Amino acid sequence: MKNNFGTNISMTLFGESHGPAIGIVLDGLPAGFKIDETRIASDMEKRKAKGKISTQRHEADGVQIISGYFNGYTTGTALTILIQNQNTKSKDYASIQYRLRPGHADYTAFEKYNGFQDYRGGGHFSGRLTACIVAAGSICRQILEQQGIFIGSHIEQLYTEKDESFAKDYESLVEQIHAMNQKEFATINEEAGIKMNAIAEEAASQGDSVGGILESAIVGVPTGIGEPFFDSCESILSHLLFSIPAVKGVSFGEGFGFASMLGSQANDSLYYDNGMKTKTNNNAGINGGISNGMPIVIHTCIKPTPSIFKEQDSVDYKTKENVKLQIQGRHDPCIIHRARVVVDSVLAFGILDLWMSKKASEGLV
Amino acid sequence: MKNNFGTNISMTLFGESHGPAIGIVLDGLPAGFKIDETRIASDMEKRKAKGKISTQRHEADGVQIISGYFNGYTTGTALTILIQNQNTKSKDYASIQYRLRPGHADYTAFEKYNGFQDYRGGGHFSGRLTACIVAAGSICRQILEQQGIFIGSHIEQLYTEKDESFAKDYESLVEQIHAMNQKEFATINEEAGIKMNAIAEEAASQGDSVGGILESAIVGVPTGIGEPFFDSCESILSHLLFSIPAVKGVSFGEGFGFASMLGSQANDSLYYDNGMKTKTNNNAGINGGISNGMPIVIHTCIKPTPSIFKEQDSVDYKTKENVKLQIQGRHDPCIIHRARVVVDSVLAFGILDLWMSKKASEGLV
Amino acid sequence: MKNNFGTNISMTLFGESHGPAIGIVLDGLPAGFKIDETRIASDMEKRKAKGKISTQRHEADGVQIISGYFNGYTTGTALTILIQNQNTKSKDYASIQYRLRPGHADYTAFEKYNGFQDYRGGGHFSGRLTACIVAAGSICRQILEQQGIFIGSHIEQLYTEKDESFAKDYESLVEQIHAMNQKEFATINEEAGIKMNAIAEEAASQGDSVGGILESAIVGVPTGIGEPFFDSCESILSHLLFSIPAVKGVSFGEGFGFASMLGSQANDSLYYDNGMKTKTNNNAGINGGISNGMPIVIHTCIKPTPSIFKEQDSVDYKTKENVKLQIQGRHDPCIIHRARVVVDSVLAFGILDLWMSKKASEGLV
Amino acid sequence: MKNNFGTNISMTLFGESHGPAIGIVLDGLPAGFKIDETRIASDMEKRKAKGKISTQRHEADGVQIISGYFNGYTTGTALTILIQNQNTKSKDYASIQYRLRPGHADYTAFEKYNGFQDYRGGGHFSGRLTACIVAAGSICRQILEQQGIFIGSHIEQLYTEKDESFAKDYESLVEQIHAMNQKEFATINEEAGIKMNAIAEEAASQGDSVGGILESAIVGVPTGIGEPFFDSCESILSHLLFSIPAVKGVSFGEGFGFASMLGSQANDSLYYDNGMKTKTNNNAGINGGISNGMPIVIHTCIKPTPSIFKEQDSVDYKTKENVKLQIQGRHDPCIIHRARVVVDSVLAFGILDLWMSKKASEGLV
Repeated sequence: MKNNFGTNISMTLFGESHGPAIGIVLDGLPAGFKIDETRIASDMEKRKAKGKISTQRHEADGVQIISGYFNGYTTGTALTILIQNQNTKSKDYASIQYRLRPGHADYTAFEKYNGFQDYRGGGHFSGRLTACIVAAGSICRQILEQQGIFIGSHIEQLYTEKDESFAKDYESLVEQIHAMNQKEFATINEEAGIKMNAIAEEAASQGDSVGGILESAIVGVPTGIGEPFFDSCESILSHLLFSIPAVKGVSFGEGFGFASMLGSQANDSLYYDNGMKTKTNNNAGINGGISNGMPIVIHTCIKPTPSIFKEQDSVDYKTKENVKLQIQGRHDPCIIHRARVVVDSVLAFGILDLWMSKKASEGLV
Repeated sequence: MKNNFGTNISMTLFGESHGPAIGIVLDGLPAGFKIDETRIASDMEKRKAKGKISTQRHEADGVQIISGYFNGYTTGTALTILIQNQNTKSKDYASIQYRLRPGHADYTAFEKYNGFQDYRGGGHFSGRLTACIVAAGSICRQILEQQGIFIGSHIEQLYTEKDESFAKDYESLVEQIHAMNQKEFATINEEAGIKMNAIAEEAASQGDSVGGILESAIVGVPTGIGEPFFDSCESILSHLLFSIPAVKGVSFGEGFGFASMLGSQANDSLYYDNGMKTKTNNNAGINGGISNGMPIVIHTCIKPTPSIFKEQDSVDYKTKENVKLQIQGRHDPCIIHRARVVVDSVLAFGILDLWMSKKASEGLV
Repeated sequence: MKNNFGTNISMTLFGESHGPAIGIVLDGLPAGFKIDETRIASDMEKRKAKGKISTQRHEADGVQIISGYFNGYTTGTALTILIQNQNTKSKDYASIQYRLRPGHADYTAFEKYNGFQDYRGGGHFSGRLTACIVAAGSICRQILEQQGIFIGSHIEQLYTEKDESFAKDYESLVEQIHAMNQKEFATINEEAGIKMNAIAEEAASQGDSVGGILESAIVGVPTGIGEPFFDSCESILSHLLFSIPAVKGVSFGEGFGFASMLGSQANDSLYYDNGMKTKTNNNAGINGGISNGMPIVIHTCIKPTPSIFKEQDSVDYKTKENVKLQIQGRHDPCIIHRARVVVDSVLAFGILDLWMSKKASEGLV
Repeated sequence: MKNNFGTNISMTLFGESHGPAIGIVLDGLPAGFKIDETRIASDMEKRKAKGKISTQRHEADGVQIISGYFNGYTTGTALTILIQNQNTKSKDYASIQYRLRPGHADYTAFEKYNGFQDYRGGGHFSGRLTACIVAAGSICRQILEQQGIFIGSHIEQLYTEKDESFAKDYESLVEQIHAMNQKEFATINEEAGIKMNAIAEEAASQGDSVGGILESAIVGVPTGIGEPFFDSCESILSHLLFSIPAVKGVSFGEGFGFASMLGSQANDSLYYDNGMKTKTNNNAGINGGISNGMPIVIHTCIKPTPSIFKEQDSVDYKTKENVKLQIQGRHDPCIIHRARVVVDSVLAFGILDLWMSKKASEGLV
């Protein structure tokens, strides 16, 4: 449903990069949940542009909850978050309105919206809208955490530099998740993080950009969530992940690595030890689209930011003439470190919604 | 919505592997489309178990259209397809009802359905249900083809053996798509196909199984389809793909390869030549979640079939005792060649539904 | 969504009057519910054509559950009900294919489906499809009844003849509901029922038809169900009721009578007596779209059956010529006594779905 | 879906009476529609409280469009409307927080939201939220009007006073619709309007309130809209109408009057005269849930405003004690004249969405 997603809870996202404000409506939340606004602020902070490898557009990103929230608690009615746009430099865009930026949605927006799209700063396609998702996702995460469900991600790869992967044993994994949530630039291996920053700075200095791969883990998920056939855990989570701009690949557990495994290697043997467990977790806590209680592990590929300063070949939409394009303005040479918390946020939303769908049919027999 | 998916057209899937029949309701089709039943049969044929590397359960898979179809044309009302289950050997399963098969949905089904699931042959989780999706998808494909949109897939990788990738130039790609749709075991390189069969046979002889990667391409897609923020082309197609049992990874265009590219390499430069085109097609015909008219190219990873004959460690759900499990019965050591047409089918459904959503708002201004 | 409705449970309806079968998919049911098939049969019996005031098309209406049902219990996966069409006399319709029957969907079907609709016996518009709804609704009712929620309806008015209304006091109302569910022709006052039958027979003898008003009551509904703003109890129930062919008016509690009341008369004063209660129940157990625990009382107007034998003025769709139309075949001069259980069925579905939506957010804070 | 409704276009409504703002997200609009903001203002004006028979809470109701709107045209992305709450007197409510107002959603909100609801001024249940619906509906109406579809309503009954009904002949009806849209207090007969005002003032002077019946008409609707089985025109429109606070009855055409008609009276004979027409229009332009091109005529009953100043019997939710309640503050003794444009607005939304669903499947065969 376009800018609306979800079954028992839903998000409705709106706004453009250079409009007065962006926002999100989070509907279907349970009433009486005490929201920690400091936590929202700290989650927002993780998405903020900082340092040399991010855009110089700095926004306060003050989160204003204008409905569904009363005396510090959710009311159970639609909760709406508004974030004002303040630091906009719209004139940077007027001159290149018809010059289609490669890798961006400029051409497709023209084709879909017949030229009526708000082209300034990417309009509705701007990564800026993900700020709203982080705010909404923060509330979902707080609800999940109170129930013992935790989510975290790290930059497993940036360009050619790789971080170590999440630990396979449960206790270490939980520790790593908490550690990642404290970090600004989330890598398990500090050294790798420093090298990644250097790579991104180098790309920036060349007017270029880089992408990478996020590894995410969700622990504490109850068994039995996921609604096959069509609303498997993988379907819902990938649907949400692929709505984030720049995501081009999503996999669960061993992902594309399954291709070169034998069935006897791929299958996760079960054993019982104070609850059902699997010896390996290649299937990432999901069998038949339904959670089995083991950690859900996901890889998400973020393509390099399409806004680069190098001269590019393009076309003027109006004249259909081939042109040389030189992008001006303020852009991120790297967004993966900021995208991390966006990924965590949609995962939180998805898990909460699936869990609520399971709750819907309980206690009726 | 569980067993229902879609906006302007929808599929509702039902049935269990060993029940009397499986089926699908395809709702929202335009009235007056002449269905080619021979074509449905030939698409079904591609999914059928054949030869040594497939299960020995052979089903006629006769497709019976029991509603929404009159005098050879769609009526515009809900079209329902029934496929009878005939060759069931349910007693193979009774003895292992509580013995959880690793890699299968046995444990998660117990947790979700409290033991009331139809456990025979995987029940609702059986790959058998995809037969219905192929029949429904065949109708969607026929509608798309009449409008110049074609879909095809090949086995790009099976275990360690690789096929060549789809051609980059348009004419060759279209030719390859048509060629793949004529093949039973779809590889571009014949030699690779022969080797893949040998690998699968070898795994089978060891009581083991293999998986692989499908590369799919869709050509002729009009520009402007896809409904961001949440219903991007990638979101809808991945949602559908991940509902297919055994799919664990989905990527678009360069996919996870984007991680090690620079922005200047990843961006697809535009040029105008009798229509807008891009020099490369790394983004797989989709920018900002919306189609740009270039081919949509997708990779889907199918994990090795979990049903293997090797002895496995497992647990008895009832007694919670650790047990050795030896699966009996008839199983596929390899399903990727059969999954191919299932993938094509959900892609056809997704593209048709997104296209209809675009049509909904046309002609109103 | 056309032939699909519902949030946590959903119905997908399919079939045509003269096709091989009609059916319904009921998805999202809790697993492990023991279905009483005898009860389904007895609910189906109430919808069956009988006696002089019903069509002479008699169908066995054998309900076949072909999925989602195993060893007498729901499995939690999509439950599908098939009902074969047997007693069809399709040739009655061929001759009047283009002769638009007044009051029917003939003309609108032509306009919507471009002439490709299955015109035989009303096709997808036939009241026959409601047989599926009764079967599905029977399962929903059984679940509700186990939780102490009961639904019943009676014919409050048939043409000019009126039955007495449901009792205002709770115990009598519950008794009446149970009594109505035992009756074939449901009136509270036996005398009124006899007169109604005489009126219907008289209309039939003239080649004419009659309609009327059903009064329905639901008792035992928990407080707090209904999802405002848009999914109020009234919205969901009216949506379902107006999907039943021939329904042209729906009201809650005092309904249109509220127009001539003062606020001081319309408001239901509250008092506490072993639970919250209201002295009157003008608002029919619903305030602000949410249930308050008092009985939900609904009036539904069923228009006279459009199939009459009197000669009517009409148009030939093909030639656009004005014609005289004389309907042949087998038709109901009165359907309200058969519609009764259809109304009960959609109410059961709606209440169950709304209740499940409430359950979805419980236990999270 | 709670605060979200619609298929191809959707509304997401949020806000509380005494929160900082209320708003609505209108998603799925076609791009490039030039919005007439003056028209929105004039539609809003019709809903505003004025004179003695309305609340003394006067709000500027300035409509601010903060997304999806650029340079005077819709962009095709989610359009968001904000309306600030300014004239709030929240302290009027604190003292009666637990004193349940009869006829209001106070008790049901407690049961649904566990006491966390924003109780001030009715919170999310306030009729104030309908201001957003009027703003969104105004945009829908503008789109429809450009396509020749017009909607209008008048107060057919207020308490015991009746206006004449809409004309049966097309030209007069269209004229009346346009006339109603110019009026503040919409009655066809001026005299009736004056008497209605006197009745409402008299009720107000007694501390009481009145309700009534609106008759609405929609002309110019294309044939073939409506999506049976479940999304019939009647189902969608009633779903929307019953979401408006205080609506307790909805009927189409002859509505409950059908009960005392014979089939031969109820059926609308067809004739051809430069297009298909019906001699009568008892079925209100809808057969089988699908539009037939004749005017759609609807009756909606609005119950008397529950906020009255007379002393009422009630209960304190906290103490469960029976109490006498005397409502303070500013309230409408009559809302039907303000509700009129809300009704028009949801009808506009519903017709537009259904029309778009029809467009979705056109041009595919």
